[in-house]
Amino acid sequence: MKLHDMELSGNCYKVRLMCALLGLQYESVAVDLWKGEHKSAAFLQLNPRGQVPILEDEGTLIWDSSAILLYLARRYGDEQWLPLEATKMAEVMQWLSVSQNEILYGLARARAVKKFNRPWDIAQCQALGKQALEIMEPHLSTRQWLTGELPTIADIACYSYVALAPEGGVSLEEFPAIRLWLTRIQALPGYVGMPGIADLDD
Amino acid sequence: MKLHDMELSGNCYKVRLMCALLGLQYESVAVDLWKGEHKSAAFLQLNPRGQVPILEDEGTLIWDSSAILLYLARRYGDEQWLPLEATKMAEVMQWLSVSQNEILYGLARARAVKKFNRPWDIAQCQALGKQALEIMEPHLSTRQWLTGELPTIADIACYSYVALAPEGGVSLEEFPAIRLWLTRIQALPGYVGMPGIADLDD
Repeated sequence: MKLHDMELSGNCYKVRLMCALLGLQYESVAVDLWKGEHKSAAFLQLNPRGQVPILEDEGTLIWDSSAILLYLARRYGDEQWLPLEATKMAEVMQWLSVSQNEILYGLARARAVKKFNRPWDIAQCQALGKQALEIMEPHLSTRQWLTGELPTIADIACYSYVALAPEGGVSLEEFPAIRLWLTRIQALPGYVGMPGIADLDD
Repeated sequence: MKLHDMELSGNCYKVRLMCALLGLQYESVAVDLWKGEHKSAAFLQLNPRGQVPILEDEGTLIWDSSAILLYLARRYGDEQWLPLEATKMAEVMQWLSVSQNEILYGLARARAVKKFNRPWDIAQCQALGKQALEIMEPHLSTRQWLTGELPTIADIACYSYVALAPEGGVSLEEFPAIRLWLTRIQALPGYVGMPGIADLDD
């Protein structure tokens, strides 16, 4: 298995974390976004969106972090990580959507403005990102994981940019249930971190 | 089955179209966004995001258009609409992600600026939306549907705001393969349209 990867990308980190939790080995191929490698003709052959992560696995090529999480869960995990029953699967999908909406266009973009000088309106991004936290906080105050009794790919998809929110100028101070959920993920067997994610047990 | 619905919402239309294609009956409950009904306490109990659509089905409550499509496919459809094999399911997920990213934050937002005076940068939205079309055009020039041999929820998720793109000032003239794909969806048994979507056979 080969992962086209970038260390500081929260979307790549979702895949690295999922592989670690499933005990999967892979070769990491660093893509140099500063040099524009992700916009090269060779890279666009792999992913027409010109984005990392991309997973190659025995001739299968998957782009998009949510699609890769789903692939890994279906192929190498079990129904814990992606339940197949209609209502339970739809609940996982709800949070994958939050990860691709309020979290990506809010928290991740606010971080990208601050950290990588991207051209977006940081106040709009932070406000959208806070909407994600305001939805998650009451939800997580009565449960351990986003859906069901055990962690799923929904938790992994939402974790990275929530944990990285302070890098985008969005504090987690007001969100104690979210901070507890972060520590639960950090305590999962096989957990790996990434630069910028604080160890909340410190 | 009850759908909390808004006629001019492309996200609600995805659900109406999927129900029509599956031959499902439902009660449509119009939510008056102009009066802010979607931000009322009662509505936020149903969906903390304060958005339509929401589906109620025998005590099950699902928000988020992608999650509702997935629920309907798993519960009432068959594996045509959502294949369960890892690679095929991941391919469907890739396009659900495009529908929630470039299409929603690009094409749908550009339309919302023009049609509903929303406060976003229309040039940025149109540019992001065109990225979706530029990915889809070569992909659809060699195949009938976004994934596999038959339409899936990926096609339904991407259809509405692509078909509505001209309302956001994004022309489909340069995208003949996409226009053919739109006519294929319009020819599906049970197809229903919505205001603003041109019948391309005219």
